[in-house]
Amino acid sequence: MSDHPMDERAAKLLGGTSSRRRFLRDTTLTAVVVGVATACKNSAAAKPIAQSAAGAAPIPSGSTAVPAISPADAMDAMHEKGIKAFPAATAGKGNQLIEPRIHDGVKTFELTARKIRWETAPGNFVEAWAYNEQVPGPQIRVREGDRVRVILHNELPESTAIHFHGLELPNAQDGVPFITQPPVKGGQSYTYEFTVPNAGSHMYHSHHNSAKQVGLGLLGAFIVEPKVKGPHDDPDVDQVFILNDGAHGYTFNGKSFPATAPLVAKLGQKLRIRFMNEGMMIHPMHLHGMHMTVIAKDGWPLSSPWKCDTLNVAPGERWDVVVNCNNPGTWAFHCHILPHAESDHGMFGMVTALVVQE
Amino acid sequence: MSDHPMDERAAKLLGGTSSRRRFLRDTTLTAVVVGVATACKNSAAAKPIAQSAAGAAPIPSGSTAVPAISPADAMDAMHEKGIKAFPAATAGKGNQLIEPRIHDGVKTFELTARKIRWETAPGNFVEAWAYNEQVPGPQIRVREGDRVRVILHNELPESTAIHFHGLELPNAQDGVPFITQPPVKGGQSYTYEFTVPNAGSHMYHSHHNSAKQVGLGLLGAFIVEPKVKGPHDDPDVDQVFILNDGAHGYTFNGKSFPATAPLVAKLGQKLRIRFMNEGMMIHPMHLHGMHMTVIAKDGWPLSSPWKCDTLNVAPGERWDVVVNCNNPGTWAFHCHILPHAESDHGMFGMVTALVVQE
Amino acid sequence: MSDHPMDERAAKLLGGTSSRRRFLRDTTLTAVVVGVATACKNSAAAKPIAQSAAGAAPIPSGSTAVPAISPADAMDAMHEKGIKAFPAATAGKGNQLIEPRIHDGVKTFELTARKIRWETAPGNFVEAWAYNEQVPGPQIRVREGDRVRVILHNELPESTAIHFHGLELPNAQDGVPFITQPPVKGGQSYTYEFTVPNAGSHMYHSHHNSAKQVGLGLLGAFIVEPKVKGPHDDPDVDQVFILNDGAHGYTFNGKSFPATAPLVAKLGQKLRIRFMNEGMMIHPMHLHGMHMTVIAKDGWPLSSPWKCDTLNVAPGERWDVVVNCNNPGTWAFHCHILPHAESDHGMFGMVTALVVQE
Repeated sequence: MSDHPMDERAAKLLGGTSSRRRFLRDTTLTAVVVGVATACKNSAAAKPIAQSAAGAAPIPSGSTAVPAISPADAMDAMHEKGIKAFPAATAGKGNQLIEPRIHDGVKTFELTARKIRWETAPGNFVEAWAYNEQVPGPQIRVREGDRVRVILHNELPESTAIHFHGLELPNAQDGVPFITQPPVKGGQSYTYEFTVPNAGSHMYHSHHNSAKQVGLGLLGAFIVEPKVKGPHDDPDVDQVFILNDGAHGYTFNGKSFPATAPLVAKLGQKLRIRFMNEGMMIHPMHLHGMHMTVIAKDGWPLSSPWKCDTLNVAPGERWDVVVNCNNPGTWAFHCHILPHAESDHGMFGMVTALVVQE
Repeated sequence: MSDHPMDERAAKLLGGTSSRRRFLRDTTLTAVVVGVATACKNSAAAKPIAQSAAGAAPIPSGSTAVPAISPADAMDAMHEKGIKAFPAATAGKGNQLIEPRIHDGVKTFELTARKIRWETAPGNFVEAWAYNEQVPGPQIRVREGDRVRVILHNELPESTAIHFHGLELPNAQDGVPFITQPPVKGGQSYTYEFTVPNAGSHMYHSHHNSAKQVGLGLLGAFIVEPKVKGPHDDPDVDQVFILNDGAHGYTFNGKSFPATAPLVAKLGQKLRIRFMNEGMMIHPMHLHGMHMTVIAKDGWPLSSPWKCDTLNVAPGERWDVVVNCNNPGTWAFHCHILPHAESDHGMFGMVTALVVQE
Repeated sequence: MSDHPMDERAAKLLGGTSSRRRFLRDTTLTAVVVGVATACKNSAAAKPIAQSAAGAAPIPSGSTAVPAISPADAMDAMHEKGIKAFPAATAGKGNQLIEPRIHDGVKTFELTARKIRWETAPGNFVEAWAYNEQVPGPQIRVREGDRVRVILHNELPESTAIHFHGLELPNAQDGVPFITQPPVKGGQSYTYEFTVPNAGSHMYHSHHNSAKQVGLGLLGAFIVEPKVKGPHDDPDVDQVFILNDGAHGYTFNGKSFPATAPLVAKLGQKLRIRFMNEGMMIHPMHLHGMHMTVIAKDGWPLSSPWKCDTLNVAPGERWDVVVNCNNPGTWAFHCHILPHAESDHGMFGMVTALVVQE
């Protein structure tokens, strides 16, 4: 098991333009080619297809001549351009695993909240309020029973505080200003310390002026591995998948299509996805090609797992699912509220792909 | 078992004005009369009810005289008019079972996508993009393991493609332009062919410019009967129930109240409903008088069925339920987001009835 | 077991200004103090915290001098003021248990629908349409198999009717004008009578012009205790929790924060919460500090209960949960659609607290 082999692969894949191109060639484009080929093998086209997927004519610009391209073809060209750009490189990457300092058996994580510039999609820069300059913030991953210290440094223009959403902490560590602690003012630091009480897929986020602060990016995953492993705690790929829909638009792990990271697994591997919704709307996540088996809600294992291809994730919820990656190809994976995923300019926002490599 | 006896009955019932009147007399109106009678038998009215349900005065029109009717009575009259019109006849009927051509063991379905005029409620005509001039498109019903060919003819002004939502097909048949196939341009045809891999209540719809194309009607049910029948695969009535909320307003199977089709069962019969949401909003469907037992999610049987009277259906989801029709009468059946179902002008949109006939 | 000891406590606590202050001192403020103390004990503050939770400077008013307080501190002061006001006294209290008249074994409840003025939060008065001058209306609590009579007196400016949402009644008692009964006009009365058929957490509300009438307050809880008690039918605290989001804003049991009533239990007690959504939106309810075990949907026990800390409640749904109150303190309890619970002016709307007293 690797906690996030996909991240490692994606880092390699996205490391340079040439390797990104290789990724596209190896996965998405291959899929397109295979798709066309298979379709042809099946005598798919009852009439000849005049124009291949890659054959759309470019839109002429700066020309006074009447364009030769029809509005329908122009639309297709925009759609194709978006998909060909996937996965697009952008500055910054959220949800990176943070290593604790360990001293006297206490795992210490430091989080600095600061205003940054964040690129959600190529060229789309927004203001973000971020932990350690990441949206989502660094992924904290500990074990049930660990002693943990989280030191928050507030460099924001207003007060803040951290709530550990889903952890059943002593009241003083719950992170709600004026109920369990004073607000942490700009320029101040504050330390949370606790023994991790319950396993599962949890979150940390601001609980002060939170509609604004969480919307701007003060959020992250807090994963607690159980003391006693269950049947799904050693997946081949383990992926945190945070949904948001606030000031940064429709995002997966802080990025919008085509800059969303694909999920990548090899044929036959077991993929665990930890959905978390930090937004204000539901997002029914639809996976093509394979079903998901729902194994936990808010970190609590289900005694009766159930299967689906469309999982409705509401704000504040976490749902853990496993996918047996038994169907090779590049599979669309998106919110099924279609205006969160596609316009007549092509796919955008809450779209990514699960790539099952043979 | 019949796949859609309700449809047959509805066809007869709605075949002519006289038979529609008979339906109303036999069901809705009878229910009203019985309701009043029972209420009276129970000494229901503590004060005499001056005006019967059917006794509201008509609203005078084209008159300069001060109307004798109060605003409250005028509102009641509008409400009554809507309910008395149910089920209202409109042109066109969606979700009709399509018979395949069978050749060499392959079931072939042809779907032609075309712009049409569609009547959602009496006199309310909208532009629809439809398969075979139906909204929803024709109901495809096959069996697990069948070899199926779907030939799409695109007569639309833009490209399109069909995604078989919920079917775990080979990647090349998944219907996502530029990922698994080229877009099918206007004037072209395209053939999908596959062996049906998994049973259950699924859908087919456009996956190109889909926020627009699905909203305009390019959607339908794809029902796969299992090889090995389960306990709920021989219901007395088997009803597909597609929710939508796009360009055509709030609809059930392409129609708005009072033009929605009632569900009809005889006392003691078992009714299976296959909810499918092709819209952009949740719709918590509330059945009066009886509960629903939820037996499948996205086509996958639940190991622990659960009961409810209000089932929240999110975009892209399918939920199968069974109702033991043990309570005779005409029962309201509607989305419980009340502004999707009623205004001060009366019921509209997402309202129908389950009629349990003695 | 007490049906609503919290209500009794809250009544005592909120009975006078002095006792309300005592409540705050004993619970919320104590929690704050304990929180700070614990934090300090843990060497929580890496840098000294200059300003205590209670130490924010007041905003000067009616002064021409430049205020010494920063915008960030002014915001904190607004947040603090809201929390310190909780639970704020307001006129009127909904969801009060109504005692029936019992004659010949029939339990008779009288409900008068009337337009009133309702205070949702201190100084925020709205027009309400209410049963017995309460929003929510009086809590009806009966037993499976009881013979019940509900007499509705309509003193509203328009017709109305009562639907018993979730009860599987004879059709004539279903409360849908023009389908099962005539509308009950202003000045008229109408009697419903039935033998209570099914146990669980149900509702009653208007089913006439309902988007308006329910939005204005014509709704209440109808709780049916089962003939044969289940494992969760003798909780220490049994709390009805009605969500609404219509004309009165975001409310819990008819009140907005800081006027929402806290839930109160002693350490070790078992709390049962009956969530009911009478609004138009989903509300994913998030409890801090402890999880909820979901035991029933729409009044029907689940064969496989499941755990969560965030429960998505859709319009028309009821969900019963139990909480083992094993974590002492004052715990935020709110809708996790953050704009329903907090703005830069502080918490408002759908926020309350669960107070677990040692």
